[in-house]
Amino acid sequence: MAQRIGAHTVRLERPPSVAAHAGLAGKKEREGPLGACFDKTFEDARFGKKTWEQAEQTLLQNALTLAAGKLPRTCPQPEAIFAGDLQNQCTASSFAFKESGLPFCGLYGACSTMALTLAMAALSVEAGAFRAAAAVTGSHFCTAERQFRKPLEYGGQRAPTAQWTVTGAGAAILAANGGPGNPRITHLHFGTITDLGVTDGANMGAAMAPAAARTIADLLRDTDTTPRDYDLILTGDLGFVGGALLRELLRREGFDLTETHNDCGMMIYDREKQDVHAGGSGCGCSASVLCSHIFDEMRRGRYRRILFAATGALLSATSALQGASIPGIAHAVVIESGERMTDR
Amino acid sequence: MAQRIGAHTVRLERPPSVAAHAGLAGKKEREGPLGACFDKTFEDARFGKKTWEQAEQTLLQNALTLAAGKLPRTCPQPEAIFAGDLQNQCTASSFAFKESGLPFCGLYGACSTMALTLAMAALSVEAGAFRAAAAVTGSHFCTAERQFRKPLEYGGQRAPTAQWTVTGAGAAILAANGGPGNPRITHLHFGTITDLGVTDGANMGAAMAPAAARTIADLLRDTDTTPRDYDLILTGDLGFVGGALLRELLRREGFDLTETHNDCGMMIYDREKQDVHAGGSGCGCSASVLCSHIFDEMRRGRYRRILFAATGALLSATSALQGASIPGIAHAVVIESGERMTDR
Repeated sequence: MAQRIGAHTVRLERPPSVAAHAGLAGKKEREGPLGACFDKTFEDARFGKKTWEQAEQTLLQNALTLAAGKLPRTCPQPEAIFAGDLQNQCTASSFAFKESGLPFCGLYGACSTMALTLAMAALSVEAGAFRAAAAVTGSHFCTAERQFRKPLEYGGQRAPTAQWTVTGAGAAILAANGGPGNPRITHLHFGTITDLGVTDGANMGAAMAPAAARTIADLLRDTDTTPRDYDLILTGDLGFVGGALLRELLRREGFDLTETHNDCGMMIYDREKQDVHAGGSGCGCSASVLCSHIFDEMRRGRYRRILFAATGALLSATSALQGASIPGIAHAVVIESGERMTDR
Repeated sequence: MAQRIGAHTVRLERPPSVAAHAGLAGKKEREGPLGACFDKTFEDARFGKKTWEQAEQTLLQNALTLAAGKLPRTCPQPEAIFAGDLQNQCTASSFAFKESGLPFCGLYGACSTMALTLAMAALSVEAGAFRAAAAVTGSHFCTAERQFRKPLEYGGQRAPTAQWTVTGAGAAILAANGGPGNPRITHLHFGTITDLGVTDGANMGAAMAPAAARTIADLLRDTDTTPRDYDLILTGDLGFVGGALLRELLRREGFDLTETHNDCGMMIYDREKQDVHAGGSGCGCSASVLCSHIFDEMRRGRYRRILFAATGALLSATSALQGASIPGIAHAVVIESGERMTDR
């Protein structure tokens, strides 16, 4: 049975294993520093489909199919899907899995969705509802641009603080008995919405950094751990602007992240060569990086304990037009492959 | 610990109580047959706010505040919020609870959201993650019309199969120890997406009925129960067209719902006098009806066992414009106030 520790963190007593995972990406992501790490990449933006929306559905489908194909024979196939995305009404996920025949739980956490789906799937497996459950999310540059920003054909200039929505997806299958050596989800932390009044939709990093700082500080306090207890504190997609803000915010609270922090939005593109300004963003950013490169490195032994906090900006085109501020959220999970950490 | 029974149903071992609940609605709903049952109703469509979107946020906030105010002193206040809505990027929920200071889990199930939030909140309490958790959702006629259909000013004529989006909201607070006499969530069933190819956005009942039939038939088979084992089989918002289709689809599978079925979309308006064509719809339809009238009647002893299946149409304005069909989903929970039913 799960146990609440501290204010908001949940400790899982029988931590589900990450039994299989897959990360996929588009062409621009393949040309970045992690290009060789993805399980599959696509050459064009439509993946042979008629619309970008259908391409995004294909990304999500492929992520789950590839992950399920890697499951050890002893591990049950997923019995439920926890998924979400950025398209209006989460249609990328709904359409992607409408033929799956599996119970489907739609989630919305904007770009924090990878952590939210992992947390919910882990909780359902811990609770005994499913022997195995899939956590899936992704995003597509072209669907996000047209929905949240401007028509691509307009060719608008991007602000220096703007991030580039990743075309990519990730899927992780959590299992009650995933075998030894697998990373395990040992703690989860549902984020508290934090809104400091940022209204600049071209600076999501600034809007999300306070939520990330809150979640990470709360989790460290709840578990009585320090940044040094983790091999990596990985944020979702704060990018270069939000990443620097996060480290500064946490430094003021007495947490030094200098040696342990990285951000999927800072890792996925080559800042000098790829013209992405403040880095990557979108649900697919942390999903594709975590479910390929990061989980692979955990299996290789490079990381034994990761605090993964994915961040989301909970705005819509309508809320932006109405002049509302941008609420941020950060959901987090602790992933461990070695000995379980001591928490209070 | 929860236990999977049959194909997809989850039996909760320590069923969380519905410790408190509140249902709110707008002016048109107050003029309907259930008008006197709501905890609070609003006179105008903006509730004194500047925009309809803000009015919808107010509905959700009020629902949770009113429910929390009814909690017995012995019951802990909610430690997390599970919420969702129909606005793009679920902004009604995010903005409503951004000052709550509580862990927030965003869910998307279209009009099935009341059952989805109840199921997720119940699972989190059963798992031990929270001592109490809130399930909240709602909808607003004006925000839904402008987002999914046509500008209100256009005054478009409605098809006979069209449903009227309810302005309303509901909140239920589930607790591990909610005291005796409270209704309890004893089973949950995450729906499987079902799409028979309906593309008519003015006939959501037809798009959702097959999903409702699937969920109800699966749950009855999984639990080895019949429709007569329930005092009420309550669907979310199939309305008159979808409700009739559901009963016909289930009759063909050998389940006779004649005596036990009702639908929140058929209950909330006076079909003859209120010009709502096929009935009510929207997340707020089943949320406001369940969290006021139905739970109240359970407490009065009229119903002891309810199968509540809320239905959702997983479309977006974009998917409709691109000619895609409308995937349906129905999430369900079994709510019992008396002796627990025998399942296999």
